[in-house]
Amino acid sequence: MNYADRLEEAIAARGNPSLVGLDPHLELLPDEFAQARDPETPRHERAKAVETFLLGIVELAAGRVPAVKPQSAFFERLGADGALAWERVIAEARRAGLLVIGDVKRSDIASTARAYGQAFLEDAGESRCDAITVNPYLGADSIEPLLEVCERSDAGLYILVRTSNPGSGLFQEHGDPPLAHVVAREVDSWGRALRGSCDLSSIGAVVGATHPAELASLRELLPNTPFLIPGYGAQGAGAREIVSGFLAGGRGALVNSSRGILYAWKKPEYAGMHWKDASRAALDAMIAELQGALKSPA
Amino acid sequence: MNYADRLEEAIAARGNPSLVGLDPHLELLPDEFAQARDPETPRHERAKAVETFLLGIVELAAGRVPAVKPQSAFFERLGADGALAWERVIAEARRAGLLVIGDVKRSDIASTARAYGQAFLEDAGESRCDAITVNPYLGADSIEPLLEVCERSDAGLYILVRTSNPGSGLFQEHGDPPLAHVVAREVDSWGRALRGSCDLSSIGAVVGATHPAELASLRELLPNTPFLIPGYGAQGAGAREIVSGFLAGGRGALVNSSRGILYAWKKPEYAGMHWKDASRAALDAMIAELQGALKSPA
Repeated sequence: MNYADRLEEAIAARGNPSLVGLDPHLELLPDEFAQARDPETPRHERAKAVETFLLGIVELAAGRVPAVKPQSAFFERLGADGALAWERVIAEARRAGLLVIGDVKRSDIASTARAYGQAFLEDAGESRCDAITVNPYLGADSIEPLLEVCERSDAGLYILVRTSNPGSGLFQEHGDPPLAHVVAREVDSWGRALRGSCDLSSIGAVVGATHPAELASLRELLPNTPFLIPGYGAQGAGAREIVSGFLAGGRGALVNSSRGILYAWKKPEYAGMHWKDASRAALDAMIAELQGALKSPA
Repeated sequence: MNYADRLEEAIAARGNPSLVGLDPHLELLPDEFAQARDPETPRHERAKAVETFLLGIVELAAGRVPAVKPQSAFFERLGADGALAWERVIAEARRAGLLVIGDVKRSDIASTARAYGQAFLEDAGESRCDAITVNPYLGADSIEPLLEVCERSDAGLYILVRTSNPGSGLFQEHGDPPLAHVVAREVDSWGRALRGSCDLSSIGAVVGATHPAELASLRELLPNTPFLIPGYGAQGAGAREIVSGFLAGGRGALVNSSRGILYAWKKPEYAGMHWKDASRAALDAMIAELQGALKSPA
């Protein structure tokens, strides 16, 4: 089944568009995983602690949200042991009924891009991702092999269009029209052959919530493109900022929070709570906030 | 010792600027590693075959060329087993006196970019890279944490400026001045604080040999930046095309060949030779060709 159709079905079934980012910042792990922070701990034990922590988050997310987004950088810090944790966390998330978006932001020339697509979307067995994030800087011929992989495997891509970081405009606003709009037009064209019966494409776009005007104008340019909207929570955007990234009826987007959910135990409002209770409370608050904002758009 | 200084010393010691790309395309491996091509072979055996093949290439490269460039995509196709092969190949290349440039083309927002830098340039012990390739699309705040890692660890970056693929102009030529030139100016500025005593910076640029006019104009814009020049050999550029990417005296650049060396056994001119003899002959031919071109620039 086409990725966009699976995505829309999952969002409808959970009744909210929350995406939980699985970013195991070693330095922020709760105290019961303190050994993972210590470089003296054997690496496989550090990776095991990361895995146990994230399996707890997956358990919280399952049934509540449509998807999770593991961030590969933090696993890669633990080398081959981290790669094993990546595989186990993804396999468990899929078993729990969650869609998995691998936040890998890969990009390369065609023959190598194909290998990345195979690595994450085809070859990985029960640990394969449903979709991955991709960087467009190399151009159309770097994306085409990935489109073929998506077509074969019913997988999806989220192509970076306008990222959530404060300095994203430096290159993404270059030129007239700005580069992000030029990329957006290509994303629309690349996605045409991969539209599902929901009329959205499996080829999505990453558009940060931290630039609300851009989010609205890119939404207009991309009426058939699912958005992955980062920047909510720890990066500073609230529910009001994300509304313009959605299509009518609250369709067509996922809103990501990573640190705001995983490390909720560090926030004053959850002081004294067990990390898992704090994460659950933060996730419930996010779900309620997004549902509220999407019911009564500004 | 500053990465740029180590690089210039290695190029001078070997007397040539060849960079051997370690791209283990599973489909192209020599017949004695046929089990690696077969998806039915247990994954750890496939990864072991890749490792054995690449250790043979590392042995050929050691003492002949200054550096090797493993390409992470092909290792990632083999998951955690591929990650282990990545670590072993890098550790062996470093023991053999080769500089290692991890071709990972990573990019992300600051907190995640830092984790990538730590993963490849700091945390990986004997398997850490001397430098990695990086994608600039996210802007300056995505690069700055990597500059800090390089400063702490005497490591280097090669930032994608103009890539070697045929369609690289789609976004990289957008605007006036073209995006690649805007990125180049930033690369020059990011690299200023990391110049070595050789007057080159540890912050380099990837500029493809397949666009010779661009190579020459970017060389003028970036007089203190080491270039990593892909596109030689299998991608179509010859030695004449790469000369304009060098500084006076044949300094300041590495020229990469991956498939042209690793899969030389498939070329008609090496028919009937053992893969290792074919790779050695192809590498010697590349070295001689580059040395000739740099001695008598067109």
